[in-house]
Amino acid sequence: MKLEFLGTGSGVPGKFRNVACTALRLLDECNSVWLFDCGEGTQQQILRSNLKPRKINKIFITHLHGDHIFGLPGLLSSRSFQGGNTPLTIYGPKGIKKYVCVSLGVSQTKLAYHINFVELTKPGKIMENNKFTVYMDTLDHGITSFGYRVVEHDHPGQLLVNKLKRDHVPSGPIYGQLKQGKTVQLKDGRKINGKDYLGPSVKGRIIAILGDTRKNNHSYGLAKNADVLVHESTFAAEDSKLAHDYYHSTNVQAAELAKRAHVKRLILTHISARYTGHMNRVLQKQAQKVFRNTRVVNDFDMINVPFNKHDYVISKK
Amino acid sequence: MKLEFLGTGSGVPGKFRNVACTALRLLDECNSVWLFDCGEGTQQQILRSNLKPRKINKIFITHLHGDHIFGLPGLLSSRSFQGGNTPLTIYGPKGIKKYVCVSLGVSQTKLAYHINFVELTKPGKIMENNKFTVYMDTLDHGITSFGYRVVEHDHPGQLLVNKLKRDHVPSGPIYGQLKQGKTVQLKDGRKINGKDYLGPSVKGRIIAILGDTRKNNHSYGLAKNADVLVHESTFAAEDSKLAHDYYHSTNVQAAELAKRAHVKRLILTHISARYTGHMNRVLQKQAQKVFRNTRVVNDFDMINVPFNKHDYVISKK
Ligand SMILES: [Zn+2]
Ligand SMILES: [Zn+2]
Repeated sequence: MKLEFLGTGSGVPGKFRNVACTALRLLDECNSVWLFDCGEGTQQQILRSNLKPRKINKIFITHLHGDHIFGLPGLLSSRSFQGGNTPLTIYGPKGIKKYVCVSLGVSQTKLAYHINFVELTKPGKIMENNKFTVYMDTLDHGITSFGYRVVEHDHPGQLLVNKLKRDHVPSGPIYGQLKQGKTVQLKDGRKINGKDYLGPSVKGRIIAILGDTRKNNHSYGLAKNADVLVHESTFAAEDSKLAHDYYHSTNVQAAELAKRAHVKRLILTHISARYTGHMNRVLQKQAQKVFRNTRVVNDFDMINVPFNKHDYVISKK
Repeated sequence: MKLEFLGTGSGVPGKFRNVACTALRLLDECNSVWLFDCGEGTQQQILRSNLKPRKINKIFITHLHGDHIFGLPGLLSSRSFQGGNTPLTIYGPKGIKKYVCVSLGVSQTKLAYHINFVELTKPGKIMENNKFTVYMDTLDHGITSFGYRVVEHDHPGQLLVNKLKRDHVPSGPIYGQLKQGKTVQLKDGRKINGKDYLGPSVKGRIIAILGDTRKNNHSYGLAKNADVLVHESTFAAEDSKLAHDYYHSTNVQAAELAKRAHVKRLILTHISARYTGHMNRVLQKQAQKVFRNTRVVNDFDMINVPFNKHDYVISKK
């Protein structure tokens, strides 16, 4: 599980930051990639990463502002052109279906796959598969804006193969059943309980990715105990009045939320183009005074999300 | 008058070529820039050029395929964000208004300027101002596709200031009237005819920019005697069967048109990503065997269009 930041800018693309897109890479977990928002130029950013468009099978839109959706029609077309033929689901506020359908319709784009639209209206659980459950809650951005909380199911413990060998349990398909904690009978008559051969189960990870918002009461529930909280940081601390007026957050407001919600790591994105090289470090330092494990990300930064450890690694392409 | 190629690729963006956009820079002529097509990422390409979005006051769309229009909503938003507040006109096939209005509507984008939509149905003259007349004709691309012919009005000759001085005509506002070829009376009683003090008039330039098309009967009229013909070149000569099947042209078909239409220079664009560095030179050489003054352009190439000279300069940023 990795987070890759394909667009970390705010409002309009800048020379160094493209508009919003965050990829949650779940290649090990379910051989797929989920996108959160899809600003213009996302497909060009993907070209410069090693991400395959056909692996993207879910796109979560936080809100309908142009810098979060104008890359959708192009990405959907290219996914088809590049061999993507499996269904894709788009979650987002009411209106996203009309936007995509009119764009693809007017341009006479025919896709090789089906798009399933889920226009969300009620907060709560919006999706569940065998590995993850995703929750949504509303934020405060003038326009309808969502935060998403991705909760990984706990992993059963590893099968203790050495212990099985020591007890002369022959390998084969029964290992699969034991791994699921089932009881099986061996050819020699012994009954073996899988639970006796499993290591400790591992707590699933939690990722919270919030759309644009000003300080509000729902962010806490979305962020609580998350391994990673991805939060907008459109303004610097001293501009909290502006942040409130424009329905955005400051870096320090995000850090205060991270602290209160006991997250493990805070990622600040959606950075205005007015903050150049040096100012990015200032933004980060201001936030770190409130919540130490904070990072302002750049386009193409990749963050590994390990199981319950504190050693997150940021690799730069 | 310059042509700047902001996107020279075909279908989907590649690592080296973005999708379609050609800028006709008329900064000296009328302090404005006209775009032809606006694929996704055009505003990002503009960021990397020295072009100002607010100078763009006309956008001509050749056809509604995604690689020619998906950059429009973002560019229109950024133009407003970056201080553009003068009206802008979009010319294109029926459907372009719906696409733009739904995109801006769903994203709740409010522009600081008015967009005037001209959905074209009839070939012929589509626009005229004091410097240029633009004509449109239909092409053959499966979907409705247009070619545009921009004809600059002839320039009256330069005012022969040295001759005026020799004849002791005092400088002042009357020089403006003489420049327009009017007859004026001097304080000393002499009547002076401006036409006697003008150098030879200069023929206006002609630029033909054609949308995607296969070989057809209308391209000739659009291209005839043009100073520059900008033509798609999606396929190489040996793939003329594919070009026909997919409603596209080969490099050599474009060169044959250029020769027959007596254009001065042929620019090949809309190059498939399959043609990498070396193959681009092959594409160009194949075409040059038919029409010598041919160039395959790359993103950000700029071409100066001088008055009736043959010394076109390509500068590379
Ligand atoms: Zn935003
Ligand atoms: Zn095209």
